[in-house]
Amino acid sequence: MKRTPVAILGATGTVGQKFITLLQDHPQFEIVELVASPRSAGKPYHEATSWKQNVPIPASVATMTVQDTSSTLTAPLLFSGLDSSVAGEAEDRYSKAGHVVISNSSNYRMAPDVPLVIPEINPDHFELIHRQGRSGAIITNSNCSTMFLAMALAPLYRTYGIEWVQVTTLQAISGAGYPGVPSLDILGNVIPFIGGEEEKVEQEAQKILGTLTEKGITPAPFRVSATCTRVPVVDGHLETVTVKFPQGVDPSPEEVIQTLSSWRGLPQEMNLPSAPGQPLVVLPDQDRPQPARDIWCNGGMSTVIGRVRRDTIGNIRMVILGHNTVRGAAGAAVLNAEALLAQGLLDDRL
Amino acid sequence: MKRTPVAILGATGTVGQKFITLLQDHPQFEIVELVASPRSAGKPYHEATSWKQNVPIPASVATMTVQDTSSTLTAPLLFSGLDSSVAGEAEDRYSKAGHVVISNSSNYRMAPDVPLVIPEINPDHFELIHRQGRSGAIITNSNCSTMFLAMALAPLYRTYGIEWVQVTTLQAISGAGYPGVPSLDILGNVIPFIGGEEEKVEQEAQKILGTLTEKGITPAPFRVSATCTRVPVVDGHLETVTVKFPQGVDPSPEEVIQTLSSWRGLPQEMNLPSAPGQPLVVLPDQDRPQPARDIWCNGGMSTVIGRVRRDTIGNIRMVILGHNTVRGAAGAAVLNAEALLAQGLLDDRL
Amino acid sequence: MKRTPVAILGATGTVGQKFITLLQDHPQFEIVELVASPRSAGKPYHEATSWKQNVPIPASVATMTVQDTSSTLTAPLLFSGLDSSVAGEAEDRYSKAGHVVISNSSNYRMAPDVPLVIPEINPDHFELIHRQGRSGAIITNSNCSTMFLAMALAPLYRTYGIEWVQVTTLQAISGAGYPGVPSLDILGNVIPFIGGEEEKVEQEAQKILGTLTEKGITPAPFRVSATCTRVPVVDGHLETVTVKFPQGVDPSPEEVIQTLSSWRGLPQEMNLPSAPGQPLVVLPDQDRPQPARDIWCNGGMSTVIGRVRRDTIGNIRMVILGHNTVRGAAGAAVLNAEALLAQGLLDDRL
Amino acid sequence: MKRTPVAILGATGTVGQKFITLLQDHPQFEIVELVASPRSAGKPYHEATSWKQNVPIPASVATMTVQDTSSTLTAPLLFSGLDSSVAGEAEDRYSKAGHVVISNSSNYRMAPDVPLVIPEINPDHFELIHRQGRSGAIITNSNCSTMFLAMALAPLYRTYGIEWVQVTTLQAISGAGYPGVPSLDILGNVIPFIGGEEEKVEQEAQKILGTLTEKGITPAPFRVSATCTRVPVVDGHLETVTVKFPQGVDPSPEEVIQTLSSWRGLPQEMNLPSAPGQPLVVLPDQDRPQPARDIWCNGGMSTVIGRVRRDTIGNIRMVILGHNTVRGAAGAAVLNAEALLAQGLLDDRL
Repeated sequence: MKRTPVAILGATGTVGQKFITLLQDHPQFEIVELVASPRSAGKPYHEATSWKQNVPIPASVATMTVQDTSSTLTAPLLFSGLDSSVAGEAEDRYSKAGHVVISNSSNYRMAPDVPLVIPEINPDHFELIHRQGRSGAIITNSNCSTMFLAMALAPLYRTYGIEWVQVTTLQAISGAGYPGVPSLDILGNVIPFIGGEEEKVEQEAQKILGTLTEKGITPAPFRVSATCTRVPVVDGHLETVTVKFPQGVDPSPEEVIQTLSSWRGLPQEMNLPSAPGQPLVVLPDQDRPQPARDIWCNGGMSTVIGRVRRDTIGNIRMVILGHNTVRGAAGAAVLNAEALLAQGLLDDRL
Repeated sequence: MKRTPVAILGATGTVGQKFITLLQDHPQFEIVELVASPRSAGKPYHEATSWKQNVPIPASVATMTVQDTSSTLTAPLLFSGLDSSVAGEAEDRYSKAGHVVISNSSNYRMAPDVPLVIPEINPDHFELIHRQGRSGAIITNSNCSTMFLAMALAPLYRTYGIEWVQVTTLQAISGAGYPGVPSLDILGNVIPFIGGEEEKVEQEAQKILGTLTEKGITPAPFRVSATCTRVPVVDGHLETVTVKFPQGVDPSPEEVIQTLSSWRGLPQEMNLPSAPGQPLVVLPDQDRPQPARDIWCNGGMSTVIGRVRRDTIGNIRMVILGHNTVRGAAGAAVLNAEALLAQGLLDDRL
Repeated sequence: MKRTPVAILGATGTVGQKFITLLQDHPQFEIVELVASPRSAGKPYHEATSWKQNVPIPASVATMTVQDTSSTLTAPLLFSGLDSSVAGEAEDRYSKAGHVVISNSSNYRMAPDVPLVIPEINPDHFELIHRQGRSGAIITNSNCSTMFLAMALAPLYRTYGIEWVQVTTLQAISGAGYPGVPSLDILGNVIPFIGGEEEKVEQEAQKILGTLTEKGITPAPFRVSATCTRVPVVDGHLETVTVKFPQGVDPSPEEVIQTLSSWRGLPQEMNLPSAPGQPLVVLPDQDRPQPARDIWCNGGMSTVIGRVRRDTIGNIRMVILGHNTVRGAAGAAVLNAEALLAQGLLDDRL
Repeated sequence: MKRTPVAILGATGTVGQKFITLLQDHPQFEIVELVASPRSAGKPYHEATSWKQNVPIPASVATMTVQDTSSTLTAPLLFSGLDSSVAGEAEDRYSKAGHVVISNSSNYRMAPDVPLVIPEINPDHFELIHRQGRSGAIITNSNCSTMFLAMALAPLYRTYGIEWVQVTTLQAISGAGYPGVPSLDILGNVIPFIGGEEEKVEQEAQKILGTLTEKGITPAPFRVSATCTRVPVVDGHLETVTVKFPQGVDPSPEEVIQTLSSWRGLPQEMNLPSAPGQPLVVLPDQDRPQPARDIWCNGGMSTVIGRVRRDTIGNIRMVILGHNTVRGAAGAAVLNAEALLAQGLLDDRL
């Protein structure tokens, strides 16, 4: 089967590197172009990037010449890990020039005509691309902390409804990119603030779980309150979560665990290449999930949950965890692309 | 002024070491006896302990011979950092033999006739010692995570009332004693569970903020929901806190900050040696408090607060921090002893 | 092809867990028995062990019942990760009862009739098993820090000779097993001492590079001076090394790099399943090797080298690195077993 | 006594912050001016700096307006923590304008007419300022890793002579300034390279221990070979050191310990305010010194030594440690200023 040629935007950054790692042996996509800042343009990739992965740069990519965002590209499909400071202009321009941009950036996530999709939850929202008036399209995935929260909330919301959600995140340093957090600020320390993060976590899940109508997405009507902290962990965002169901709804922890564990979606039904067999894995041990032990569950594509128990303020509290640069970023974009392809939604554009 | 002779129970442990450090130049107390496990008994202290403080063992203590808990002691006042597995029997026995035991252990905290005191909040509860039927007495301070929570809640509860409190803790490894947490479990990791901790945090603050009646303490009628995690930080417990005030009560963040900052109690009024000038310090920076920067505020005896802001589920959320082995353990016990002494409550017993 | 049944001694410990992980899909060996301390005996493995790997326990192993070292075993081949406090007696007994014990323990490494083998270097030493007078045999691999040093020294010693070697190690916490190093001792700290380690590093390489004669092994006649430190790294031992060649021998760094990079041995020639394609990988970057980036080079079985440069006291200095629990422990034993099998040396014993 | 007015150059950086902390209550110096980059100029200090100390900014300094290096200063004495990229020009200009610059920068350390002084070792070198042809003067202290090495070597060199020294450093992240080392590069990792560091360590000690002649400093004739690594420690440089004495000189470890422990210099004799009572403290424990336990020995101004033992290649090996931002940087400069003042060497210039 012929693989679709793809370009990586923001190829030298943390998310870009993860795209390259994840697409290295992908059955459907083949990296043919790399785009980064003007500072990197013209250099072979291995010189332009400060490679931080613990596997080597794939040979075919290492010697590829990096282009800048002013370049005309040939690949019909673009994976974007661009910094939000430049993503807005570049993604808009490429999508209007006919490219389908699968973006991990935050710029267009809340735009009314841009799908913000987790394929297990709302693949029907992909439909929005036809309302963009672009010859190409922009498709986004969620913020890395929203990802695991939205996945855990999806079956609960659809089964029980939700009134509110309270979350405290303990986020890994890789979420801040490179050079990112100075070591003097985080070694043996906690920073109880991440700029712009709480706003994203407090509103993205409602769009993802919202209803597609002719007028756009009607967000799901629950409140989220988030406090986001940075902890000295390399990979893996952990979140303590309390959920309040609607008045009169009070499932037992065992029922909730069953609801979470049995949840499946389109990626599982269509057996997409990057799909985790089980999107939500509930661990029985009382001291799990832990970043150092559980982020690689199902290749880093599952959300891992533990400590599901009754709460005295909400109904249920639990601890959730996911791999922030895999399922929380590059892997989410790749799964979106696979879902689009499998549904034939890109047939007219690729 | 003649100093009161004191003994340290559990002298070789983490809390015992901190007692020794804090009492080194104390104007009112003089260490004359050291008690530890039978394994340490008979040895000079510097051989019996695995000293982990970053100041040397005081010379007068280093060569003192360690005794075990079966020893008869001469000091009228005992500071106990005993492990809860042995504290129950030993503290009871010493207190019945006429000693006043200032305990950091959890065993008797919730006993109806034992005062659980933070001197800024409920020094009137010391009165309970007269109901113990002991020739001596047992006085306790709170769990290390409760300490900072209770201190932050005290002025809020008394000014506005409280309906419920939601807290997620990020606790330092020193809270687990020595050898405590294996490095393989916590380096670059988070453990989202600490055995027995959540139960303590969920009930101790209500006793501390409770009302002393003839029948005992009537606990303050609010609910606390706690999730406790361990993070790779040496010293300093950080807590994200949401507070719900009673129906119709909704002070602004500025009012709450004013209420917190202006709070003073008996230790400040009596100018006790270990009292922080300001028990609650509110920082204006949006990324504070942080363990590595703020635990030594006022000698480690203040609770440091930041990010006071409105919440959409409760009324107010904030981040609080304190030094878990100083104000959260040994320092709390020392301040209790100072408060007892200053009020003359030990005049008949010392 | 029928796989050889094997047992894991010390199955619940850190090295035992790594044996299980490495042998999970091994083409030649099949785990049929698990042995640990009496405390674990009788329990299913998943209950007996505190699993610390970031992949799950293989299903076939998880439910296997653990036996203790008094058990009679059926597997002809035993991989031992026993603690040295019990390895001496147990390994001796099993080997006399006809089992071939591939041991990672230090007890018999320096015994005159026990081969201490790195298959790339001295597979001829396996011959010693015929002098043990055991119906089975004991075969050992080196200490984890010796492993990477000996591998780097082997081609240099054989090409240029060596007068002395000076090494400072920066060792990972996983080398101390579990619970191992308390987090209070190593988080944000360095411990400049590891009990018994320097003695091993100072004498094992000479036996490995020694000559087999009728009277036993004549050790290679060079001196090693070692200082061993523990650093807050999970996996990966890094070593700074200075080498003095014999008087008049002074190869350039380029020649040394060529000598290191081109080195191959029996595992490569026989294409053993666990053999790294290139045993010594020299990186060109001036800030490499690094534990977090390079330990998984060739599945954790290569020694990674960098900063090869002239020295003003010796001739050459360099930095070396390896995965201490893979090539430095369990992986070394597995490779020894593969080399024995491939050479037919176990045909009479298995 | 009237205090000498001083200015801090590079006041917003890591070293500048430490100058401010150390001079806060200094009996001889009073901070009256702050100098930093043009970006900070015009702002009050508390806004211009990203304060990383765990004590608050002194009130008198917090509101002081920062100037840039083009400013004319009134303070006769300047403490410089300027980055080496700007220190060269600025320090030269100020010293020619009549200011005495006590510099922690590396730019002029090896200049023939600039004293590179550790007051315990070579206060006679201060004399060089009269050969600079400046109306003011430039005085430097050593690199942070050189500091502890030179201090440990001084009594050995003067007692026994030295042929060569071999050192591997394990350096703290605070040595790289702020933002300095990205956390993704060092959390759970070791970086075996620090740009420019080895060259400094390999030549500065010889100048410090050199002889002042009419023609300048004749460096001490021993060789130093250094490998410098960065480890995940906040403060404290640890070094493993091997020393070779001249042919025929072979003191026992006990003699060496006695030589180190009994060493005193001018700061001790003149009882300077920042002088450690004992410059070299030798610990008896086999697992010391450790950064987390020993850097604050004598207020962070002593070099702490352990594991003094015989070596098979050199004569003696040992482990040394010091507080890199106190004795290794700002504290060294302050002690230099105190020594100059106490000797009356600045009488004509201040």
